[in-house]
Amino acid sequence: MRQDGFLIMLPGPTNVPDRVLRAMCKPLIGHRGPEFRELHERIVENARYAFQTEADVFVLTCSGTGGVACALENVLQPGDEVVVPVMGVFSERMAETARRRGAKVVEVPVAWGSAPIREQVEPFMHEDVKALCLVYNETSTGVIARELPALAELAKEHGALVVVDAVSVLGGDVLPVDKWGIDICITGSQKCLACPPGLALVSVSEEAWRAIEANQHRPFYFDLVRAREFLRERRETPFTPAIPLFYALDEALAMLREEGLEKRIERHARCARAFYAAVEAMGLRAFPEPRWRSQTVIAVEVPEGVDSRALRSAMKERYGVLIGGGMGKLRERIVRIGCMGIISAREVLITVGALEDCLRDLGFPVEAGAGSEAAKRELGLL
Amino acid sequence: MRQDGFLIMLPGPTNVPDRVLRAMCKPLIGHRGPEFRELHERIVENARYAFQTEADVFVLTCSGTGGVACALENVLQPGDEVVVPVMGVFSERMAETARRRGAKVVEVPVAWGSAPIREQVEPFMHEDVKALCLVYNETSTGVIARELPALAELAKEHGALVVVDAVSVLGGDVLPVDKWGIDICITGSQKCLACPPGLALVSVSEEAWRAIEANQHRPFYFDLVRAREFLRERRETPFTPAIPLFYALDEALAMLREEGLEKRIERHARCARAFYAAVEAMGLRAFPEPRWRSQTVIAVEVPEGVDSRALRSAMKERYGVLIGGGMGKLRERIVRIGCMGIISAREVLITVGALEDCLRDLGFPVEAGAGSEAAKRELGLL
Repeated sequence: MRQDGFLIMLPGPTNVPDRVLRAMCKPLIGHRGPEFRELHERIVENARYAFQTEADVFVLTCSGTGGVACALENVLQPGDEVVVPVMGVFSERMAETARRRGAKVVEVPVAWGSAPIREQVEPFMHEDVKALCLVYNETSTGVIARELPALAELAKEHGALVVVDAVSVLGGDVLPVDKWGIDICITGSQKCLACPPGLALVSVSEEAWRAIEANQHRPFYFDLVRAREFLRERRETPFTPAIPLFYALDEALAMLREEGLEKRIERHARCARAFYAAVEAMGLRAFPEPRWRSQTVIAVEVPEGVDSRALRSAMKERYGVLIGGGMGKLRERIVRIGCMGIISAREVLITVGALEDCLRDLGFPVEAGAGSEAAKRELGLL
Repeated sequence: MRQDGFLIMLPGPTNVPDRVLRAMCKPLIGHRGPEFRELHERIVENARYAFQTEADVFVLTCSGTGGVACALENVLQPGDEVVVPVMGVFSERMAETARRRGAKVVEVPVAWGSAPIREQVEPFMHEDVKALCLVYNETSTGVIARELPALAELAKEHGALVVVDAVSVLGGDVLPVDKWGIDICITGSQKCLACPPGLALVSVSEEAWRAIEANQHRPFYFDLVRAREFLRERRETPFTPAIPLFYALDEALAMLREEGLEKRIERHARCARAFYAAVEAMGLRAFPEPRWRSQTVIAVEVPEGVDSRALRSAMKERYGVLIGGGMGKLRERIVRIGCMGIISAREVLITVGALEDCLRDLGFPVEAGAGSEAAKRELGLL
């Protein structure tokens, strides 16, 4: 391995500030004592700020996918009908999770590279739909479902719950959970919160609680009613939490508060604009249609004649920069760059500079410095 | 908090060697690259050594309870019958997890403080029992089910699977998974492996695979077939793993191999003998009957007139030593001391010394040095 690690420009896990990394080495504590309760309470409070919610937020020891599974297994009972717009690997995964739960899953097909609008989803909504399940930021295609507020409104008109997978976006783009009427919102520690992987955060609205309480078949490890009891009455988690990751999340959320959510989101937006400008200036194409482009995951089509593995390999070997490949049917067709967490001009420019060089080396003509210049202009450095 | 942290004599989480703690701060890596694959492969290989198995061992991002839930949700389908000897909080939890899964759970009542023998379980076994689910080390009562080999044999005679919760014991007491015919064995990172909490390890036998593959209702996040595909074909985990905890587990398992499993188990046994000798010398009583006494969790009855909370508080405030209280109906009646992981003469003597002093201070007459002397004798120091 490189002596100083990699610059992790993957769509998660992402780079973790030294301050967060080092927090994990603090002496361990018991999870049934006042030290943990204080830590836990502070995390939940700061998570509420990040989610912009007054609701309970639970910190679960599992990946983001585990968080989504927790949400669906608590809300859904076998036979329940759910509507899931499907536009990539993670929305497919959400549908599959609901199916495994025994739900009747109605998939709304959406072209990969775009996101659903109200008109596409409306025909599938009726009063027997228990929940509309939506991936807000489709990590596999670099798409953000910008119409989420309208879709949430639509769901509410039909009395359905709104369950949102925000794993790769919360803290990096606009997502006022309460204001938009999101009943369950899930994120992961290792994306825009710039914390190591291993924790999922899940918010639960009053309306969602009614469905959860009525569910006689809640799973055991992921039982949110049990989690609520422990959170509200004891400020603890029902089972042993991953304490070092709680230390890290505490520090990561403290950094988020210090910066302020609005500024943090604007920083992500500015860096994303720089990436997209650079992509265009290098003669490349972003995969999603312009209106659906994510500001946390930048999906770029690999130009003809360039091998996507060779490109990622060159980025890694020559610059120590990790970028992601495609997923599912896009495996060889796109590369994905994480624009998350600590993202700043520095990470953008290293990545764009490495990309220019590696592409040229693989035979794709890039005008020297074209991408970097375009990125700098968007970053206000020129 | 104390300036140098606590001595964690809880029945988990337990003390973590500095070497393991610091491993978490290594630079992060992606979980789809060769660096992770190499790490993961080494962990699995060393876990097989610790489990004494040739079977697959999976490392899951969740607590030990999550590992047990994973096992039961993969093996059991709604309506399946399982037999669960119940002798404490964790065996109750195992029964509840199976019930939540929709299984028909037959509980075998066993007195708290003892463990099941073949004759108790035999009447409940028949050919329609899918699995015998057993807690090998009942953390809540300080009991070890020493008859596990005979019980596993009994289960096999009836064609049932053997699912063993070894969360608080694997690595600290005898448990040859293959030799004893255990189909699924579950442990947690934060107990005898001396790693921070947040990971569960699960081994799966060929016979268990047949049941799992036939299960059309496997959960999504915990799907072991998916995990097997990723492990065997890519040496990866299906979802984003808690990478820093994998670093820690890698180091913890390396330490286990360096010491050797046999020596490690003998070290636990010796320290446990010292604890039990000290308990007796101080005029206290171990909670379990002698033959069932665990060598990883020492459960001690709180003497009349002493408040268990006051005792634990004094241990913490005056000596920085954390010990556990009782659970469930034993909450005030016992305290529990972890004898796990890095346990050595040092930790035993600090704990016993603190206990002597705090008990005396709370009005319980302990002859000065009686406990420490008895412990030292067992440790071969006198």
